[in-house]
Formats: sequence, structure tokens, C-alpha cells
Amino acid sequence: MGEFAIKTIKGGGITAPLGMKAVGVYCGIRGQMSEVRGQKKQKNEERDLALIKSEVPARAAGVFTQNKLKSPSVLVSKENLKGGLIQAVVVNGGNANCCTGGKGMEDARMMAKITANELRVNEEQVIVASTGIIGQPLPFNLVEKGIKKAAKELSRSSHIKLDATGGLDAARAIMTTDKIPKMIAAHFEIGGKKITIGAIAKGSGMLSPNLATMLCFMATDAVISHECLERSLKRAVDKSFNLITVDGDTSPSDMVVVLANGLAKNEEIREEGKEFNKFYAALYTVTSTLARFMVIDGEGATKLVDVVVKNAKTFSQAEKVARSIANSNLVKTALFGADPNWGRIMTAVGYAGVDLDINKVDIYFGGVKVAEKGDAFPFNEKEVKKILEKEEVKVTVDLNSGRAEATILTCDLSYDYVKINAEYRT
Amino acid sequence: MGEFAIKTIKGGGITAPLGMKAVGVYCGIRGQMSEVRGQKKQKNEERDLALIKSEVPARAAGVFTQNKLKSPSVLVSKENLKGGLIQAVVVNGGNANCCTGGKGMEDARMMAKITANELRVNEEQVIVASTGIIGQPLPFNLVEKGIKKAAKELSRSSHIKLDATGGLDAARAIMTTDKIPKMIAAHFEIGGKKITIGAIAKGSGMLSPNLATMLCFMATDAVISHECLERSLKRAVDKSFNLITVDGDTSPSDMVVVLANGLAKNEEIREEGKEFNKFYAALYTVTSTLARFMVIDGEGATKLVDVVVKNAKTFSQAEKVARSIANSNLVKTALFGADPNWGRIMTAVGYAGVDLDINKVDIYFGGVKVAEKGDAFPFNEKEVKKILEKEEVKVTVDLNSGRAEATILTCDLSYDYVKINAEYRT
Repeated sequence: MGEFAIKTIKGGGITAPLGMKAVGVYCGIRGQMSEVRGQKKQKNEERDLALIKSEVPARAAGVFTQNKLKSPSVLVSKENLKGGLIQAVVVNGGNANCCTGGKGMEDARMMAKITANELRVNEEQVIVASTGIIGQPLPFNLVEKGIKKAAKELSRSSHIKLDATGGLDAARAIMTTDKIPKMIAAHFEIGGKKITIGAIAKGSGMLSPNLATMLCFMATDAVISHECLERSLKRAVDKSFNLITVDGDTSPSDMVVVLANGLAKNEEIREEGKEFNKFYAALYTVTSTLARFMVIDGEGATKLVDVVVKNAKTFSQAEKVARSIANSNLVKTALFGADPNWGRIMTAVGYAGVDLDINKVDIYFGGVKVAEKGDAFPFNEKEVKKILEKEEVKVTVDLNSGRAEATILTCDLSYDYVKINAEYRT
Repeated sequence: MGEFAIKTIKGGGITAPLGMKAVGVYCGIRGQMSEVRGQKKQKNEERDLALIKSEVPARAAGVFTQNKLKSPSVLVSKENLKGGLIQAVVVNGGNANCCTGGKGMEDARMMAKITANELRVNEEQVIVASTGIIGQPLPFNLVEKGIKKAAKELSRSSHIKLDATGGLDAARAIMTTDKIPKMIAAHFEIGGKKITIGAIAKGSGMLSPNLATMLCFMATDAVISHECLERSLKRAVDKSFNLITVDGDTSPSDMVVVLANGLAKNEEIREEGKEFNKFYAALYTVTSTLARFMVIDGEGATKLVDVVVKNAKTFSQAEKVARSIANSNLVKTALFGADPNWGRIMTAVGYAGVDLDINKVDIYFGGVKVAEKGDAFPFNEKEVKKILEKEEVKVTVDLNSGRAEATILTCDLSYDYVKINAEYRT
């Protein structure tokens, strides 16, 4: 790729690129949902509706959930993306508008329509997303009020210098079981022009391959062809969001969308090469950082675990083995207990469903070998226990049968995972 | 199949059939293993070695783990089963003798040899099993002492009327995280001859398709051809042990073995037909009851959950969907919380990896419909909450696209699952 600098922007988010505005407001959807569930009405006034707007229509690309169950927002957004240009994004928290029948589709379309009216953009150039409880109709009156309120704030904010506040509010509005709002921005240069990519995201559980329960909205001011935008997005998602897992579940509402509004006025990136590589590297910095944030914030997670499988015959083999380990409840509970229980890892290698020679497999915790050629290898229990008690743990499995490598990012399985998911209705 | 009576025997186990003896003794393997793990040496004197003997060599069939990682006991037992006749079974708890290199194979063979010497049976007619911690060498001196002690008790017990005590002791000796010893016996008649099938088993976690972490030893006094014995075993296992799951993990040490010593002197069952069906029904009664025991005893389980998927195009489709639901941590934690969260079930249907029309899917808790045609269906939250608070819960998913049906038995995911598995080293 050559040498070039990708710099992240402290406190930066979706509003960092030129021409991008965002806002997150409170409209009461979360509180209403808790009432529906027969729980006490929430007292807090957490933001639950976000709007993002680009000053001009932007080229856009998206990647969506692979679940057969797709929520109306996913269907409407995919439809609108076909036009190639997007100018606004509307997202509500608290309710996923999923399994909500014909009304669900109507509501998703109406969200786009009202947003378009309020922001004076084209109705077909709006991305719609909803996240939260499944199977409850959207309280549409609240959503509508929220959109209008947000649009008003957005228009006000156009008079003043935009800072990250709006982006942070938007990141807050789309949280579900997330404990921390997730945002990042990075910049680099092309031909003396400063290019910025910024993003907000949500996701902390139900994370698995294929974009499970996550939303990510990115924007850049780069001038880039639609094809290059799409290609770099798919590649960056494959190498980041698709390589994390919290519990192996995948959700019906998920999407990653990137807008490129061209306001940086660089020479167009229209083919693979040096400039494309820079753009991809910056995009990957954004997606991989957000992916890491999501696992750190994994439901009940007390530690972040890199499962590295190396010297596999193929990437697919390495990935399957890594995923088998990363999704094993037995491995994840052992890591929670800081127990150097490599036997469970060897077991998960054995049932990964790939053709391999278990008698060649070595296992390491951190840098310490604990198993060799499928068997026990003497190690210092206290030393390894200390490694496993850290907040970031690396598990390496060497298949010793090729040169391919894959890393899956996961977290441990704790009491709090059970607590969060026994009490929260998605 | 016609009408015939399969009766279970109260308190009966592996010693119920004619000519079967069993014993379970304490030899200190568990205590030694806890020391290896740097924990306090266990004070309890739990039994940890079991011997089972048939008066005469018995025709035998077995089914073994599908994990690529197979422990030496599995390899030795498979080898010995090739001869078709088995007269004794030796099992130790506390240590799985897995990932233990060349010594592991030697130890497994020595277990067979010493057992054969002590019981005066043929060395090639011994089944060997080990269960417990992975990656630690067997404390062979203890194992040897245990076999000798057990053999002595077994020979003593031949003078007195055999009751279930020996079988119960054996069932106790093979427990790992099991809270209850598992045994059962059933009988029926063929041509006026009473035929009995008895069994002991262990398993409470790491249970999944393909015999994960479980041992089951069965014996019958029926005269049955080797082929019929094998066929009925495979069928019974497929319809019981292979349809349960606790956490989706599969282990390297598992086996189900059945001995048929012919002492009931019935006319040989040598082809499918009425008598074969009776035998199969009794065998299935035994395996399905034990499978249910395992899930009830599932690590940390507070409730037993039947996941029924009906009106699928094929059995395989139904099974995949049922398994996807039964293995979802999100579904299992919701069930623990008695939360009628059918959205997570619909989601698990959607990512089951099968071709289906989500817009045809209905979901029921107990007899109450909660989702119809992929969407919410109005239900009484209190009524359904009561259903979900019971110890046995039935989740039915109707795909409305065919006539095939599959049921997977699972349990909920509780704090105690995490506790047990964060603290116990397998």
C-alpha cells in the first residue's frame, strides 16, 4: 500500500466531513416501549431519534443484514440506495419496526417521506433505520414529532459552526443495550486536499457475522466513483464487522451505509490504485475501530479477545476454526473465569467442521504455548492466569498446515450477559 | 408399530438385564485433578471408577463422538468394538485422558488390559471410557488401584442377589458436572420371554448434536443380531441424544454403547418387523428418557424447553431451524427470564441458514399463538408469562410450508451456567 498517514480526529464523528450535519433528539419512543412490555414507564429522557444530512446529495453504498427476516427499514433503504444518491438518514431507537406487517412498511416509507419534507430533500434519497424491540408497531405519532423536532434543530445548527455535539447526540439516539455511544472520524490527504471520513454506530450484542444487530452510518467528503465506494465498503465490512462476534446471533435490522458527498473536491477516485488504497485504509480504520468498540461494549463483556488462527490451508478454514472458538460458550465462560482451559479450545477446533489434522495443532495464550501437536504442553499456571486476567487477551491457534490466517474478535461470557438478555426485550 | 407394552423399572439401571453386574468405587482421581488445577484438594470421596460386566460375551454396537479431536478411550473402544463382542466396560471420572499424547493411548490400552485380567475376560472385549478434565495425564496408579478394588467388589456381588445399588454406584462414578446420577431400565416381552434393557449415562453440558459430552452404557439380555442391534442403536441415538443441546459444544470423549448378551433366550431378532420394533421402542424409551434427564440436568438449567418446528418442507429443514432456535443464547436467556420475546425466535428462524418464507411463520408459546405470518399476533402477556414460568416449556414454530417436523430439546441459559463453566475445568 505504500506509506501514508491516516489520522483519527479526537471526538470526531459523522459531522467531521465537510457538509455533514447530524442531530439526536428525544421523542419518547423508548418510554412508550417499556410501557408496552408491562414494565414501569422509563423516567429517563434518552434521545431516541437521529437525523443525518448532507448539504448535497451524496453517492452512497450499503451492506445489509443476511437474515431472512428483514425489517421494513432495511427493505426501504435498499430500495432507495438503488438510485445511487442519498442525502439524509433517519434513525429511531427503542423500536425496530420489525415483524409489524403492512403497517411496518407504511411506517418506514412515511419516515422517509416526512424526513424528506422537513429537510427538503428527495424522498427517494433517504435512508431509514429502526432499532430496538421487535414485533411492536412504531408509535408513529412520536416518531413524526421526533423527526420534526430534529429537523428544526438541524436547521438551527446550520447557522453556527458545526462541532461534534450533533454527531454525539445522534450516536446516543441509536443506542440499544450499548453502554457507550460509538463514533469516530479519520482524515488523510489526496493531492493536497484533506479528505475526512466520519461515522456513528451502535451494537453490543447479537453481534456475529453478517452485520448482526448493528447500525453504522458513515460519511465522507471524498469524490469517489460509486463502484469504488461500494468495493471499498464491502471489503472494509468483511474485514471488520464481519469478523466480530458476541453471541453468534444475527439480527433483521442491520445496515452499514456510507455517503460520499464530494465536497472535498479531490480528483475523483475511480479505480484501484494509490488513492483508492488510501481511501480504503481510512475507511477500514473507521470500521475496524468501531467493530472493536462494539466488542469492548459487548453485552456483559469483561474482556476483549482476539482469536487468531494461523497457518491454515485457506482463509476460510482459518475463519471457520476461529469462529468455532469465538462462539463457544464454554471457551467464553472459561475466559471470563481467567481459566487457562485450552482443552475447550482444542475441542472447539475439533468440531469446527473443517478438515484438519488435530495432531498438528498448537495453542497459545498471549505468547505462552499451552498445547503442542494436539496435546498438553507444560506451562506456568500462574503466569498464564495473569495473562488471562487482563482486559485484552489473545488466543492463538496454529494449525501448522498452511499459510492462511484469520482473526475473530470476541468477548467473554459473563453473568451480566445473562442479566442483560434475560431482562431486556429486543 | 402395533400395540405392545414397554414398562420402565423403578430404580432400574444397567444391572436390570440378566447377567449384568456393575459397580462404582472411589479411587481418588477427582481429588488429584483438583490439586493439579491449583485448587484445594477435594475432601469428598466421590466415586470415580466404574466397572460393568456381562456374565457372557455380548454382541455390541457403539456410536462415538464426531469431533476431530478423539480421546484415546474412544479410539481403543472403537477398535475393540470391531470384534463384535464385548464383555466388560471400564470408565473413570475426573480425567478425560484427552490431549495426553502417546501416554494417553498406552493408558487407555492398559485400562482395558488390567480390567481384562481382573475380570478374567478377553482384553479385546473391553470398552474403555474416561471423562473429566482434558490435557492432564491420567494418574494411572490410582486408576489401576481403582480397577482392582472395583473388580473385587464385583466378584463379591456375584454371590448375592444383584439389585440396582451397583448400577447406581456406577452411574455416580461417571458424573462430571451432573447433579443427578442418570439410569433407567425398561422391559417388554417377546414370545413369552421377558426382555430387559438397562442403562447408565452422564451428561449435563457441552451437549449438542453428535453425542456431545455424554457417556451412555446400555445392556440388554435380548438375543438380537449384530446388524439389528447396530441399526436400532443408530436410530435411537439419532432420535434422542442427537436432538438435544445445552450449549452447542461437542466433546472428544463421548460414546453410546449397547451390549446384548442373549441371556433372555428369546428367538433371535434378525430382521425388521414386529419384534424388532418392540426392541427399538424399548431402546428408544431408554435413550429418550436419558436424553431428557441430561437436559433437565443441563448446566445451570432452570427449565426444559421443547423446540418443535412443524410443517417444514423436510426433516432436515425443520431440524436446522429448531437447532438455530435451541442454540441461540438470546432465546435461552429470554426463556430464563420468562420473557415472551418471540422476536428473538423469529430472528433465529431467519438466520437458520435454510431457504424458507419468513412471511409464513407462526410462533406459539405453549398453546398460545404469539406471532402469525412473520408478524406480531396479539396475546395476553400475563397468560404467556405464566406459561414461560413453568419448568417445562414448549415453543412451537409452524413454517406452514410442508409436513415435516423436528423437535430439539434444550434448556435455558442462566447465571449458573456461567458460574459452573467459569469455575470448572473440563
